[in-house]
Amino acid sequence: MTDRRLQEQVHIIGAGLLGTSIGLALSERGVDVTLADTSPTAVRLAVDYGAGRAPRADDRPGLVVVAVPPDVTAATVARALAEHPEALVTDVASVKGSVLAELRALGADVSRYLGTHPMAGRERGGPISARADLFLGRPWVLAGHDGISYRRAGAIEDLILDVGAVPIEMSVDEHDRSVAMVSHVPQLVASAMAARLRTASNGAVGLAGQGVRDVTRIASSDPGLWVQILSANAAPVAEILRGVRDDVDALLAALADPEAPGSRRALAELIAAGNAGVARIPGKHGDDRRFAQLVVMIDDTPGQLARLLTEIGELDINMEDLRLEHSPGAPIGFAEVSVLPEVEQRLIDELSARGWRIAGAS
Amino acid sequence: MTDRRLQEQVHIIGAGLLGTSIGLALSERGVDVTLADTSPTAVRLAVDYGAGRAPRADDRPGLVVVAVPPDVTAATVARALAEHPEALVTDVASVKGSVLAELRALGADVSRYLGTHPMAGRERGGPISARADLFLGRPWVLAGHDGISYRRAGAIEDLILDVGAVPIEMSVDEHDRSVAMVSHVPQLVASAMAARLRTASNGAVGLAGQGVRDVTRIASSDPGLWVQILSANAAPVAEILRGVRDDVDALLAALADPEAPGSRRALAELIAAGNAGVARIPGKHGDDRRFAQLVVMIDDTPGQLARLLTEIGELDINMEDLRLEHSPGAPIGFAEVSVLPEVEQRLIDELSARGWRIAGAS
Repeated sequence: MTDRRLQEQVHIIGAGLLGTSIGLALSERGVDVTLADTSPTAVRLAVDYGAGRAPRADDRPGLVVVAVPPDVTAATVARALAEHPEALVTDVASVKGSVLAELRALGADVSRYLGTHPMAGRERGGPISARADLFLGRPWVLAGHDGISYRRAGAIEDLILDVGAVPIEMSVDEHDRSVAMVSHVPQLVASAMAARLRTASNGAVGLAGQGVRDVTRIASSDPGLWVQILSANAAPVAEILRGVRDDVDALLAALADPEAPGSRRALAELIAAGNAGVARIPGKHGDDRRFAQLVVMIDDTPGQLARLLTEIGELDINMEDLRLEHSPGAPIGFAEVSVLPEVEQRLIDELSARGWRIAGAS
Repeated sequence: MTDRRLQEQVHIIGAGLLGTSIGLALSERGVDVTLADTSPTAVRLAVDYGAGRAPRADDRPGLVVVAVPPDVTAATVARALAEHPEALVTDVASVKGSVLAELRALGADVSRYLGTHPMAGRERGGPISARADLFLGRPWVLAGHDGISYRRAGAIEDLILDVGAVPIEMSVDEHDRSVAMVSHVPQLVASAMAARLRTASNGAVGLAGQGVRDVTRIASSDPGLWVQILSANAAPVAEILRGVRDDVDALLAALADPEAPGSRRALAELIAAGNAGVARIPGKHGDDRRFAQLVVMIDDTPGQLARLLTEIGELDINMEDLRLEHSPGAPIGFAEVSVLPEVEQRLIDELSARGWRIAGAS
């Protein structure tokens, strides 16, 4: 890391959310950033926000970042490799194997290319949503291949460190299988569940609680983007989704005759398999059985939740997690506060004494 | 409602989370509550917590509440109807059609029975987790049938009002189809997705973000309870789950050859159908495209989040929703604050001026 230094000039192709955010982060660190986009308006907006400047004929960027939609990523990278024969080129598309394969098919010089994937983003895109801090603390995958030298790969890793993200190295195949598992198949499962809600009665959706809301939250994603992602990562997605389909078929067989021998066991085993799977997710949500949850009623006025959290802070109790639930049609809500089990009773007693209504604890 | 009065004596069978919580809520209002359970320890605990007293031979309860596991609910209700020939009987199991059918098959007097279902509960059960306020503001379904008079049904509705819940009338069939849609099938979909995570690499689960966490959160539910629920509501669950399976099959066909005519369209249509379905869920989460989301970095120290919310309150900006995200392995987290779009820029400016790092806005 002693040799690490900022690129002097970085060229970003694609002034959307990711490209503009990278431009903002690098510009803040003094890098000379140039921006290009098929939309002149997007470039002008990104320049106005301070993400960089328009390119000039004598520019010689050391690094080109391609931040365009997945279905035009490979062609754009190939063109960038040809137009900037001295530069390293990377891209930030959320699939990596199809891009590398297409580049090789095009005869591109992949000894200067390394694909990456920042695990960051917002539901809304465009330069208007861009932030210099978008990548802070987020994982950013370097999808390695054996056609690039370590020195060149290191220069691309430096870009990731420069914008505050956490570089994670994996092979192209491992990346694509990983995002199929933790992003693409969950998207399809959420969408398939949400699609059923179209046929639900008003009475049914009126009973919707936090469970179905959580399961279907990501189903509001953009179809146009997801068609590109899914088409480009079809095989790994299909392999995992077939496992889901087989489990659903086993459930349907058990539900067709729940009294038959083995039916109850099949149902129990699938729920237990889900227990085991969700326990593998690291971090607080995956592990929240370690914590005691307390549900506190709050009304929907400004400052109520802040007052609650201030009072918890004054008790010197560390809140491990917080979830909000809304009661449909009622002007009240519920704050689920997770704390270490040993402080739960003290928190219940202290909050009750201060007039908070505790609507459940577990 | 002018005739409405509290039952003088209510007998609760089952001193678990729900039974004990109902006992606590009614006892607080001065009702004479008696408690029974197959576990003498559970009864003693519930009595210690103040949920009621042990029954005596001369008790004449006007209402019996059966709060036992789904698979023994009908038999327990039938016994209660026989043992208390003057009393109304209700139950709180999460399936209603199978209980009513079993009661009719047993020749029970259903003119004194009306099933209900409180949409409340915690992941952990038992009298220790019980709270008098568990039902406050929560929907509580009255699953109507044509064998009971309005006057008697009204007395059971009064119980729901007495514990602070919101009564919602629907037929037994509508209840069972509704909970299949918003609770039982989402549970299976979440479990089937989570079951796949067992086979994920450590690298893959390390990339898990908020999306897969949300989709799989309820997959940590208890297999024993769910086997009972699913067996008792098998037909409505299977009908909806078959729709999920058909959609997954259509996805697999499209993913098998994404370049084939119609494949991309099939993928787009499923994602779009999910958009339409999730938009039907009422309340803030389902509608959150109406709001602007701002992601603020916080560190995991007590009081940091409270300080953020206090400062937002001082700006007189109403926070419409709040979500917390944790960055795996990093001592920082992200608070996603939802506000009306017209105040978003002011909030960004004010928070930035106060030193908060904004890690994204949309």
